Amino acid sequence: MTYCVGIRLDAGLVFLSDSRTNAGLDAISTFRKMMIYERADDRFMVMLSAGNLSISQSVREILQVEKVDRGPHEEPLTIWNATSMFDATRVLGSAVRRVYEQDGASLRAAGIDFNSSMIFGGQIKGEAMRMFLVYSAGNFIEATRETCFFQVGESKYGKPILDRVLTPATPLDEAAKCALVSMDSTLKSNLSVGLPLDLLIYREGEFRSDRVVCVDEHNPYFRMIRSTWGQRLKEVFEDIEDPRWDGGQAEHPLMTPSDRFEPMRKIAHPSERIV
Amino acid sequence: MTYCVGIRLDAGLVFLSDSRTNAGLDAISTFRKMMIYERADDRFMVMLSAGNLSISQSVREILQVEKVDRGPHEEPLTIWNATSMFDATRVLGSAVRRVYEQDGASLRAAGIDFNSSMIFGGQIKGEAMRMFLVYSAGNFIEATRETCFFQVGESKYGKPILDRVLTPATPLDEAAKCALVSMDSTLKSNLSVGLPLDLLIYREGEFRSDRVVCVDEHNPYFRMIRSTWGQRLKEVFEDIEDPRWDGGQAEHPLMTPSDRFEPMRKIAHPSERIV
Repeated sequence: MTYCVGIRLDAGLVFLSDSRTNAGLDAISTFRKMMIYERADDRFMVMLSAGNLSISQSVREILQVEKVDRGPHEEPLTIWNATSMFDATRVLGSAVRRVYEQDGASLRAAGIDFNSSMIFGGQIKGEAMRMFLVYSAGNFIEATRETCFFQVGESKYGKPILDRVLTPATPLDEAAKCALVSMDSTLKSNLSVGLPLDLLIYREGEFRSDRVVCVDEHNPYFRMIRSTWGQRLKEVFEDIEDPRWDGGQAEHPLMTPSDRFEPMRKIAHPSERIV
Repeated sequence: MTYCVGIRLDAGLVFLSDSRTNAGLDAISTFRKMMIYERADDRFMVMLSAGNLSISQSVREILQVEKVDRGPHEEPLTIWNATSMFDATRVLGSAVRRVYEQDGASLRAAGIDFNSSMIFGGQIKGEAMRMFLVYSAGNFIEATRETCFFQVGESKYGKPILDRVLTPATPLDEAAKCALVSMDSTLKSNLSVGLPLDLLIYREGEFRSDRVVCVDEHNPYFRMIRSTWGQRLKEVFEDIEDPRWDGGQAEHPLMTPSDRFEPMRKIAHPSERIV
C-alpha cells in the first residue's frame, strides 16, 4: 500500500506522499509516488499515485506524452497545452485508460484488480488552482471548499486529524504540519506505509515551487512532530477525566440511562433470549 | 459496517461496540453488537461481533446452545460447562462453522462473502481472564501482553490512539476512556459507525459486572469526550511549531537534505525523465 494526501487551500496546495511499495510483507521496496510538472510562469502540476505500481509507473510514463484527440481542427490536448486543470486531468484519465487497454485483460486473467488512484492538482495560468482525484476507470472528481483534501492508499488512520483541522482558510504551513501528523498516525499503525516522504507546498499564483523536500528518518522537523505529537496526545488524553461509574456524582456522569435504549441484558442460561 | 474494540488489561477487560448496521447507505439500522453471558461467581463472557448481520445473529442464537462433541465418555462441551475460555472459544468457533454449513453455499451463490468476526473475552473460575479474536472460518487468536487489544469492523480510524496509549498496566477506567476516544475518531470519519454505544468493564476475578452502560447522544461523559478531545487535539496541534522552509534557522528545520534521497526532480517538458 501507500499513503498520499493532497490539500487545496485558499493560499495554495499541499502534497505529501510516502514511498513504500509492497508485494506481500516480504517484498517491501521504496518507490516514490510524487511527480512534479513545472513550466515556470505557465503551469505547475503535481501527481500523487497509489495502487498497483506497474500501473502507476505506466501512467506516469504515458502522461507526459499523452495526446487526447480534439478533432481535425485542433491540436491534440496534452498536459503541456491544456488551458485548464480540468483538461489536464482529462489527459491523465486518458493515460489511465491507455494503460487499461494495454494491461487490463492480462491483469484480470491473472486475478489482479486494475487498481490505481491518483491525486492530481496544480494551476495553469489564467485559472485558479484545482485538485482532482482520478480513479482506475479514468473518471475523476474535484476538491471543493467543503471537501478540500483527497487521500489515496491507506487513508483511514490519518483521516480524523484532517477532518478536524482542515478548512480552505487553513494556512499552508499549518496544513503541511497537519498532513505530516496524519502521515505519522498512519506510519505508526500500518507497516505498508513507510519513509522517506515527499512534501511539496505550492503558493497560489506562483506557477513554480521550490518548497519540495524529501523527509527521511533523520529530518529534524518530522522527528519533532513524531515525538511531540505522540507525547502531547498522551498528555491531553491523561488530562481528560476518567469515566466514573457511580452515577450522578461526577461532573460528566457516564452511567446515565439512555432515553431509548436499555443497557444490554445478560444471558445467564442457555434458553434465555435478549429480544 | 460497525466498530468494536476489546481490551485485556491486568486489571480487567473493556468492551465497546457501536450499533450501526447498513445494507448500503440508504438502509441504515440500529442493531447492538454486544452479548453478555454471566453466571455469577462462575463465568463471565462477552462477545462483540462485526460483519454480515445475519451471520452474527445466527452465531449468537447458536452459541448459547452449541455443543461440541468430546467423545462417548464426556459431556459435550458448551460455553456453560467449558473450564477454560479457550474451550468456550472453541464452542464459538463451532457455532460459526455451523452457520457456515447452513448458509455458506447460498451466500456464495448470491455473491456474498461469508464475512463475520468476533471478539470474545471473559473469565471462567479457575483461570485468568482471556480474550480471543474469532474469524469467519471459526479459527481464532488470543490477545497477549504485547497485543492487548482487538478491533473488529471499521478499525483503522481509531487504531492510532489505542496503539499510543494501551499497555497491560493501563487502568480500567483509562482504557475505557481510550476506547471511547478511539470510537469518537471513528464516528467522526465514518458514517457506517453510529450511536448508541455499549460499554462494559469487567474487573479481574469478579465473575460478574454491573458496569454496563448504553451510551447515546445525550450521555454527559461521551459528550464531554467528544467536545474536549476534538478541541484539545486542535490546541495541541496549533501548539506544535509550523514547518519552516528557510533551512537551518529553525529549531527543527524541515529543509534538510536526506543522506540517501534527493528531493523529487521536476519534469519541465514531455521528453524529460526522472530516472
